[in-house]
Amino acid sequence: MIAPFTALRDHFIKLLPAIEPQLSDILPWFESYHACKDELLIEENHPSDHLYFVAAGMLNLFFKNNQGHPQTIHFAMENWWIADYPSLTSLGAAAFSVQALEDSALVRIKRNRYNELLITYPMTAVYFNQVHQRAYAAALMKQKIFATVSKEEFHRYFFTTYPDFVSRVPAHILASYFGISVDQLRDLTDRMLS
Amino acid sequence: MIAPFTALRDHFIKLLPAIEPQLSDILPWFESYHACKDELLIEENHPSDHLYFVAAGMLNLFFKNNQGHPQTIHFAMENWWIADYPSLTSLGAAAFSVQALEDSALVRIKRNRYNELLITYPMTAVYFNQVHQRAYAAALMKQKIFATVSKEEFHRYFFTTYPDFVSRVPAHILASYFGISVDQLRDLTDRMLS
Repeated sequence: MIAPFTALRDHFIKLLPAIEPQLSDILPWFESYHACKDELLIEENHPSDHLYFVAAGMLNLFFKNNQGHPQTIHFAMENWWIADYPSLTSLGAAAFSVQALEDSALVRIKRNRYNELLITYPMTAVYFNQVHQRAYAAALMKQKIFATVSKEEFHRYFFTTYPDFVSRVPAHILASYFGISVDQLRDLTDRMLS
Repeated sequence: MIAPFTALRDHFIKLLPAIEPQLSDILPWFESYHACKDELLIEENHPSDHLYFVAAGMLNLFFKNNQGHPQTIHFAMENWWIADYPSLTSLGAAAFSVQALEDSALVRIKRNRYNELLITYPMTAVYFNQVHQRAYAAALMKQKIFATVSKEEFHRYFFTTYPDFVSRVPAHILASYFGISVDQLRDLTDRMLS
């Protein structure tokens, strides 16, 4: 498995080649962290103060819906950043929970250190601005796709485009992401394969 | 009315006081632009290459749904940035349309100039990273609120929290944002006021 810091270094350079000469000063601001499967890294309504980069493994971001069931709205796999973004600016309690779906090799940084880093090495902000522009674009696209594509089409698209990803996610979590029940998910999968 | 460049200058300083000494070099990268009511600034499936800052007025971001009706998923009022974020990174055609709901005083920058600016004055990336982190947080919160709050509660919250905003938006656009019909919107408003 690739070392967590190597994965982060590679991702910085991939998005922003010009940052390479500064990375020996920048990378020591981060720390590596191993999350065990099912570990809760951020808990809804509790203080949260880290941003996480996934070097290997998978995290999901979710909230408890009206029925008290966790509803996943985002996954973070290799090379994704995840945090409780609402409290990153509000400084209040977390709006979402983040859990490890697999043993995960992460790199993390505390919120206040992250804000210091951006000012001290503004080229890191050029990198994070790209990360967050893409995340925002993906969140907008998800709203469009959910409104314009049937659950069946979305399921087919997802299962044929990301077969490796689908095989790694428990059915009840995937169903909550699709906004359907586990039975409906099973029906759609059966229908697609038949 | 506040001059467009003054509004942008003030917003830079509000989010990032440390950027002030560089603003005389940074602001000339932008141009002011007046959009007339109903003007289409970005058109879905067509090339799009500007980011817009709203100094005064209001824009909405929408796509055509399965029935060919425009569905608004985002508004930009004073001090918000708006762009077609998916094509900002993919460089493909626009995924969304952006229209002026009122005569609007804007400041804009072309995509390639924006990317040059971030590298030339990385402190601008510290500012834009804050803008995009907040926009991403708002998009995630919207997913949580839509899933945990009834249409009636959401309507009541929106109308009591943003009365000035609600009075500026045509009913059919507000209804599409809420994901309900104009008749349903009228019923909810009547019920709230009765």
